[in-house]
Amino acid sequence: MSTFGTLFRVTTYGESHCQSVGCIVDGVPPGLALSESDVQVQLRRRRPGQSNLTTPRNEEDLVHLQSGTENGVTLGTPIGLFVQNKDQRPHDYSETDLYPRPSHADWTYLEKYGIKASSGGGRSSARETIGRVAAGAIAEKYLHDAYGIEIVAFVSSVGKIHVPSSPPSTSPQTSGPADDADEAEDVLSQEFRDLLHTITREQVDQHTTRCPHPETAEKWSRSSTRLPIRIIRAKEASDSIGGTITCVIRGAPTGLGEPVFDKFEATLAHAMLSIPATKSFEIGSGFKGTEVPGSKHNDMFVKKEGGGLTTVTNWSGGIQGGITNGQDIYFRVGFKSPATISQAQATAQYDGTPGFLAARGRHDPCVVPRAVPIVEAMAAIVLLDQILIQNSRKAAATLLPRITTLPPSMVIPPRD
Amino acid sequence: MSTFGTLFRVTTYGESHCQSVGCIVDGVPPGLALSESDVQVQLRRRRPGQSNLTTPRNEEDLVHLQSGTENGVTLGTPIGLFVQNKDQRPHDYSETDLYPRPSHADWTYLEKYGIKASSGGGRSSARETIGRVAAGAIAEKYLHDAYGIEIVAFVSSVGKIHVPSSPPSTSPQTSGPADDADEAEDVLSQEFRDLLHTITREQVDQHTTRCPHPETAEKWSRSSTRLPIRIIRAKEASDSIGGTITCVIRGAPTGLGEPVFDKFEATLAHAMLSIPATKSFEIGSGFKGTEVPGSKHNDMFVKKEGGGLTTVTNWSGGIQGGITNGQDIYFRVGFKSPATISQAQATAQYDGTPGFLAARGRHDPCVVPRAVPIVEAMAAIVLLDQILIQNSRKAAATLLPRITTLPPSMVIPPRD
Amino acid sequence: MSTFGTLFRVTTYGESHCQSVGCIVDGVPPGLALSESDVQVQLRRRRPGQSNLTTPRNEEDLVHLQSGTENGVTLGTPIGLFVQNKDQRPHDYSETDLYPRPSHADWTYLEKYGIKASSGGGRSSARETIGRVAAGAIAEKYLHDAYGIEIVAFVSSVGKIHVPSSPPSTSPQTSGPADDADEAEDVLSQEFRDLLHTITREQVDQHTTRCPHPETAEKWSRSSTRLPIRIIRAKEASDSIGGTITCVIRGAPTGLGEPVFDKFEATLAHAMLSIPATKSFEIGSGFKGTEVPGSKHNDMFVKKEGGGLTTVTNWSGGIQGGITNGQDIYFRVGFKSPATISQAQATAQYDGTPGFLAARGRHDPCVVPRAVPIVEAMAAIVLLDQILIQNSRKAAATLLPRITTLPPSMVIPPRD
Amino acid sequence: MSTFGTLFRVTTYGESHCQSVGCIVDGVPPGLALSESDVQVQLRRRRPGQSNLTTPRNEEDLVHLQSGTENGVTLGTPIGLFVQNKDQRPHDYSETDLYPRPSHADWTYLEKYGIKASSGGGRSSARETIGRVAAGAIAEKYLHDAYGIEIVAFVSSVGKIHVPSSPPSTSPQTSGPADDADEAEDVLSQEFRDLLHTITREQVDQHTTRCPHPETAEKWSRSSTRLPIRIIRAKEASDSIGGTITCVIRGAPTGLGEPVFDKFEATLAHAMLSIPATKSFEIGSGFKGTEVPGSKHNDMFVKKEGGGLTTVTNWSGGIQGGITNGQDIYFRVGFKSPATISQAQATAQYDGTPGFLAARGRHDPCVVPRAVPIVEAMAAIVLLDQILIQNSRKAAATLLPRITTLPPSMVIPPRD
Repeated sequence: MSTFGTLFRVTTYGESHCQSVGCIVDGVPPGLALSESDVQVQLRRRRPGQSNLTTPRNEEDLVHLQSGTENGVTLGTPIGLFVQNKDQRPHDYSETDLYPRPSHADWTYLEKYGIKASSGGGRSSARETIGRVAAGAIAEKYLHDAYGIEIVAFVSSVGKIHVPSSPPSTSPQTSGPADDADEAEDVLSQEFRDLLHTITREQVDQHTTRCPHPETAEKWSRSSTRLPIRIIRAKEASDSIGGTITCVIRGAPTGLGEPVFDKFEATLAHAMLSIPATKSFEIGSGFKGTEVPGSKHNDMFVKKEGGGLTTVTNWSGGIQGGITNGQDIYFRVGFKSPATISQAQATAQYDGTPGFLAARGRHDPCVVPRAVPIVEAMAAIVLLDQILIQNSRKAAATLLPRITTLPPSMVIPPRD
Repeated sequence: MSTFGTLFRVTTYGESHCQSVGCIVDGVPPGLALSESDVQVQLRRRRPGQSNLTTPRNEEDLVHLQSGTENGVTLGTPIGLFVQNKDQRPHDYSETDLYPRPSHADWTYLEKYGIKASSGGGRSSARETIGRVAAGAIAEKYLHDAYGIEIVAFVSSVGKIHVPSSPPSTSPQTSGPADDADEAEDVLSQEFRDLLHTITREQVDQHTTRCPHPETAEKWSRSSTRLPIRIIRAKEASDSIGGTITCVIRGAPTGLGEPVFDKFEATLAHAMLSIPATKSFEIGSGFKGTEVPGSKHNDMFVKKEGGGLTTVTNWSGGIQGGITNGQDIYFRVGFKSPATISQAQATAQYDGTPGFLAARGRHDPCVVPRAVPIVEAMAAIVLLDQILIQNSRKAAATLLPRITTLPPSMVIPPRD
Repeated sequence: MSTFGTLFRVTTYGESHCQSVGCIVDGVPPGLALSESDVQVQLRRRRPGQSNLTTPRNEEDLVHLQSGTENGVTLGTPIGLFVQNKDQRPHDYSETDLYPRPSHADWTYLEKYGIKASSGGGRSSARETIGRVAAGAIAEKYLHDAYGIEIVAFVSSVGKIHVPSSPPSTSPQTSGPADDADEAEDVLSQEFRDLLHTITREQVDQHTTRCPHPETAEKWSRSSTRLPIRIIRAKEASDSIGGTITCVIRGAPTGLGEPVFDKFEATLAHAMLSIPATKSFEIGSGFKGTEVPGSKHNDMFVKKEGGGLTTVTNWSGGIQGGITNGQDIYFRVGFKSPATISQAQATAQYDGTPGFLAARGRHDPCVVPRAVPIVEAMAAIVLLDQILIQNSRKAAATLLPRITTLPPSMVIPPRD
Repeated sequence: MSTFGTLFRVTTYGESHCQSVGCIVDGVPPGLALSESDVQVQLRRRRPGQSNLTTPRNEEDLVHLQSGTENGVTLGTPIGLFVQNKDQRPHDYSETDLYPRPSHADWTYLEKYGIKASSGGGRSSARETIGRVAAGAIAEKYLHDAYGIEIVAFVSSVGKIHVPSSPPSTSPQTSGPADDADEAEDVLSQEFRDLLHTITREQVDQHTTRCPHPETAEKWSRSSTRLPIRIIRAKEASDSIGGTITCVIRGAPTGLGEPVFDKFEATLAHAMLSIPATKSFEIGSGFKGTEVPGSKHNDMFVKKEGGGLTTVTNWSGGIQGGITNGQDIYFRVGFKSPATISQAQATAQYDGTPGFLAARGRHDPCVVPRAVPIVEAMAAIVLLDQILIQNSRKAAATLLPRITTLPPSMVIPPRD
C-alpha cells in the first residue's frame, strides 16, 4: 500500500492530475532543525524541465510543510506536506482513452481497481515520487546532522553506455573455455571504488545527465551542446532509453538490518523496486559476485583504527548476513526504458481491437537523471528506519546488568 | 524481523544448533487439504546430503505440524510446525571462536546484538530457511488447489557457466561502437522463453544441480559421474562458487501488487533478498532491459482468447506498474559464493590480531541447487499474500452499486 | 503512531495551531460514490461553536479532498484531505508557558519528545480528531452503500446523570447480603434495548447534548433554554464534567474479528481508547456482565428467518469469541472531565515551583456531545478494516475445491 | 491475527486439542539472563487444577524453549517455545457436535472460517493463552532486570462481591437529586490506593482466589474450607460467575505511548480485550472518572524528589495524553461469566432445531483467578514494546546537536 517503514514511516497520496501530491512523515526524531528549503533542494533536483533532456512541463513543485515543526525545529509529531498540482489541464488524451499504453500501468490499474484515473498515469505517474523525495530529504537531514552520513546517487549507465567499473583485464581472453575459468580479477576497478568513496552531489550535478565520470559524460555528449547523445538520439527517434543508477551510503553505523526477513539489503531492494520503472537491483558485487569464487570474493578482516574491525575489500557492499558492517553501502538499480513513446506502436485497444498508438504530449526519453534524488530518498528512508530500530535494541541491551559468565565465543571480550 | 507478510504471514525461529527450527504460518485459508507430506516434499528438496555436491550433514528434517489442521484440512487458524535439530554436537569450532569468518555474519551479528551464538552460524545458518520452505509449501498447496498456479525455480548459472538465454546475435559485432548502437535483438531467446513457459520441477530435479538445460548440464558434468564440474572444481580447491536461480510463476491472476510501496516486484525483491547469500534480483528483462529502447522493450497488447487482453511479448516479466498482468512472472536471483571455505584465508581475529583462518567441518561449495525450493517458497509466500489482499479489494468493490455515469476513459466499457 | 488499520488504513497529521490538519486514507474500495459533502456532514457535527455549550472558537472546518477520486467516484488510491487551521493566532498563553496543565498532555509530551508545541495542546488537541472523523465518514459511506450498515452514537451520561438502562428492579433490595445474591434481572431494560435498535442520528441531534432519551434530556435542561443544566453548571463554576457515549452498529455481517489478538472488541477498544480523554470501554453487558451468572448471561440460539442462527438476547453485544455474530454491536466509552478549566488550581510550574494556574481562553466544559461523531468515525474505521480482512478469507476459501469427507462436527452440514 | 507488537512481537499458535500450543517471541533484548524456570513460574500460576475451584484437567504445562538463548542468555533472535497438549483424548463431545454453546465461539468460528475444530473450543480455548503467558514472562524478566518494574494483578471482584475501593461516603445520601450533585469524594479510597502501591504477587497468591483483600477474601470463604463461597455456589448450581481483575504496573518510565493511535491505554486496552471472555476495560478513574468534575479529577503537579515533576493524586492511572507520567499505572478488566455451564439451556442446534444443551465435562465456574497471570503477561508485552519504541526516539534525539535558540515554551529549560 502507500505506507512504508516501521518507526520512520512515510505515507503518500496523489495522482498526476489531482489537486496536490504529498505525504505524511511519521516518526521524525524530535529536535531536528528543519525548514522547507531542506526539502525543496531535493524536489528541485527531481523536477522535470531542468534541461531539454527532460519533459518541459514546468512545475514549480514548491513544498508546503503543514505540521510537525515549530520555529524551524521538529516536534516529533507527524509532518504533513504537499505540493500543488498546477498542471491540471482538462483531459485531452483521446487516444489513451482507447488504448492502454504498452508496458505502462493503464491496463493493470484497470484490472486491479476496476476503474482508473481518466487522464495521465494516475497514481503510476512520476508525480507520485514527490512525496518520497520530500520524506527522504527529511530523513537525510537527520542522518546528516546526527551521524554525518552521506548518500550520493549517480547515473552509471544510459542504454549500453556504462561508466566503466571493471578492472582492466589481466588475462587476455584467449584459449580455453572462459566460462570454465575462475574469475581472477577484482570485481570492481580501483578507479570505480575511489569514485564510490569520494563522489559528491555537486560533482554529480555538474553534468545534466548526473553522470560523474568525465570520460563517459564526454562520450555521451556532443561537443557543442554537451548533451548526452544517447538520450538525444532516443528523443529524436521518438523513442526512449533506460539506464542504471548507482548509489553509495557513507558513514552508516554497524549493526543495521533486521534478520531474517528485514535484512538491510532486503528492505533496500523493496524500497528501490517500489520506484516506478525499476526492474533490477544488486548490492555490492551483485550478479558479478555470483561468478567469483569465495576465496576471491570474501572480504578479509583487519583491525580498524580507533577500535573494532573493518574489511580490506568491500565486495559485500557494506552488508554481511543482512547487517551493515560500517563499510560503504553501494548498490545499483536498473530502470527500464520509459513506456510512453511518441512513435506509433502496433497494439490493441482496451476492447481488443488492434490498431496503432502514438503517445501525444511530451515525455521523458530517459528518466534516470531525474530518478537520482528518488533513489537517494528511498535509501535515506530505509536507513533511518533501520537506525531507529537498531538504536532501540542497543538502548535496551545497555540497561541490562552485564553477564560475566558467558564463554568467550559468545561475546569475544578484548584479548591481550 | 522474523515475520513476513500481511494477511498470509510467516514467523520463523531457530538457530543452527538449538533444539529445533520452525515457524508459525498465520492466515492460511480454511478448508485446504493439507498434510505433513505436502510440506515434507519441499523440505526434502532443500535438505543437504542429497548428493556429494552438498554438505553431508545428514539431517532427516522431518516436519511436525502442531496445529491449525484437523482431519487433514486447515482450520484457518495458525499452523505451528517444527523440525528437530538432530545435529546438536557440542561446540567444537575452536578457530571460529577466535576468527569471524570473512563475509559471513559472525562479526555483524556480534556488532548488532553484542552477543552471538557460540557455534555455527546461529540465525544466519541455512537451517533458518526450513521455516520458509515449510511455509512456502503450505502457500503453494493453496495456490495450486485454488488457482492451478505453478511455481518452478531452477539453477540458471554456476560461476560463469550460464544457461544460454540471449538470442543468437543477428548483427555480428563488427564496426562502430557497440555501446552506441540500439539493441536490435530480443531480450531473451525463443528457446529460453519456451523453457520458462514449460519447465517442471520433475525436469529440474533430473540433474543434481537442478539445471534443466541439457547442454549446460552436460557442460557442467563429467561423463562418468554426471556431476557438475564447476562445483566439483570448487570443492577440490577448498573453495566455493556462486550462481543464479531463475524462477517462473505461471497462472497468477491479474491485478496483484499494492502500489505504491508494495508493488509486486518490490515485495518479491524483499522476499528474495532476505534469503541468505543473495545479493541481486531482476525481474523480466531486468538489467538487460535498461539497454533496450522503449520501442523494442514495450509489450504490445493483443486480444486474449476468452476475453480481456494479453501481451505479445513479455519483457515486463508479468508485471506492469507494479501489478501483475496475467503473463508468466519470471525473475532471477543471484547468490554469492559461500563465505565458509576450508582454504586458509589471511584475515583478523575478533580482537584485530592478524592470522589465518581455514574453516573446518563440511561446507557447501555451492548453495544454489539447494536454494531452489527456498526461492520457490518465498515466491509462493509473496504471491498468496498479494492474492489475499487483492481478493479483499475485489470483494469490496463487487458489493457496491454500479455507477453508470462514469466517462468511458475511467472504466472502458465494452465497445462494439 | 499516527497510522491505524491494516487494509483500510488512516494516517493523520496536525497540531492545534499549525497550517492544517488532515489525513491520508488508504485502502478505500474503488468505485465508491464520494464527495466532499459526505465528509463535511460529520465534520460539521464535530465542530465546536455549535451552541453555547461548546467552545465558541468558530472554525469552518471545510474539508478539501486532494486525491483518490475523479468525477465523484473513488479510484482505490489514497485519499489525501485536509482542513485549514484558520485560528492561528500568535502565541498568547503566557501562563501555560510556565505551568503544565494538570491532567493534560503538556508535561508528558515534553517528557516524551523533549520538546513541545509552544501554543495550545499541540498534537493532543481536539483538532487532531478532524482527520479521524473525515476518514470515518469515508468508511461509513462504503459501509452504507455496500452493506446498509448504520452506526449511531449518542450521549448516555453527563456526570452522574445517566440515560436509564437498567431494568426495573423486581426484587426490592431488602434483607440479606445483596452482593451474595445472584443477579436475577436482565442486564439492560427493554426500553434501552429498543433505543439501541432504533435510534437514528436525526433523533440524536435533536437535542444539543446529543442525548436521545427525552426524560434525561429534560432532566438535563432548563425549561427556558433547554440547555443541559449539568453542563451549564460546570461552565458557570469554571469547571468541567465528563460523560459517556454509547454507540451501536447495526447490520454488520457475521464473522468479523481476527483471533486471537485482533478480536473485534480488541481493535474496537484500541480505536476508542485512542480518542483524547477516553479512559474506559465496555462492550455488550460490560462490567455489569461480570456480576451476572452464565446461565443468565448466555445468549441462547434460535433459528433465524432467512437461514442460519441468531440469539434471543444480546448481552454479548454482537460479538462472541471475538467474532461478530450478526446482532447489534453496542459499546460504551467513558470520557473523563476535561483537564483545562479556568478556575485556579494549586499545582506546580515545569521547574517545580508551586503556584496557581487558571487556564485562560475558552474551553469546552464537556466534550461528549462533540465526541459523538468521533466515536462513530473510529467505529466505522475498525469495521471496514475488519470487513476487508474477512472478505479476503471468504474469497480465498470459496476458490477451494469442497472437501466432502469432513466429519459433521467440523462443518455442520444441513440436517433434516 | 495471531501476532501482537511492533518491536517486541509475539506470535502464537495452538488449539485446545492439537499437538502443542506455543509461540515465537521476537525482539527480545539480547544479553538477558533467561531460563525455562523464568517462564514456568507464570505458566504454573495459569494452570488449571490448582485447587478444587478450577477445572481438574491436570496438565503439567512444561515449557520447552527451542531457540534464542544459549548458556541461559538471550541472543536477540526469536525465542520459539511450546507446551505439549497432553490431554488429546478422542473427540467425545457428542452434544456440542449438534449444539453451538451459547455465548461461546463455536458458532462464530464456523461463520468466520466455514469450518471449525471438532472437539473443544479450538483456538478460542483457554489453552491459547499459554503462549501469551510465556511471552509475557520473558518480557517481565527484562522489565525487572533492566528497570525494576513490578507488575501485579489480582482479583478485585467475583460476581457482585468487590474489594472495596470507594472512599467512605462523607455526605450521607439524603435529600436532593444525587445525580445532580458534584462528586465530592475521592475516586478511590486511601486504603485501595495503598493496596495498589504495595501489593505483591506473594500476597495475591495467598488465597486461592487471588484476592489480596483480607476482608473480601474472608467474605468469599467458608470457615472450614476457606473457599470463596460465590464460586462454590456457582459450581454447585452448575452455573458460572464472572469477575474483574485489577492490575498495577509500578516503576514504568515516563514518556511511553505513541500518539495518536497507539496511546499507552489504547494498546493496553487492545491487549486486554484480546484475552478470552473480557468485555470491559478501564484505566485510572475509568467510568467513575466521568462523573467527577475536572477540578476534582485533575492530578496536580508537584516537584519530585530527584528532579522533574510528579502528581499529588493519580486519578489518571499513570497516563496523561496517552503517555506515561511515571506514576503507578493501574487498570481494571472485566471477565464475563464463562459460557460453558453444565445446567441445561434452552437453545438451538446448528441447523436451528430447538433443544436443550447441558455441557458435559469439567469446566471452570470462574476464570478470574487463573486469568491473573494472563493479564500480567499482556501488560508486560505492551509495556516492553512501548519502552523499545520510546527508547529508539530518545536515542535518536540525543544524537542531534542541541538547538539553543528555542523559546522557553517549547523546551522549558531549568529556571531559577
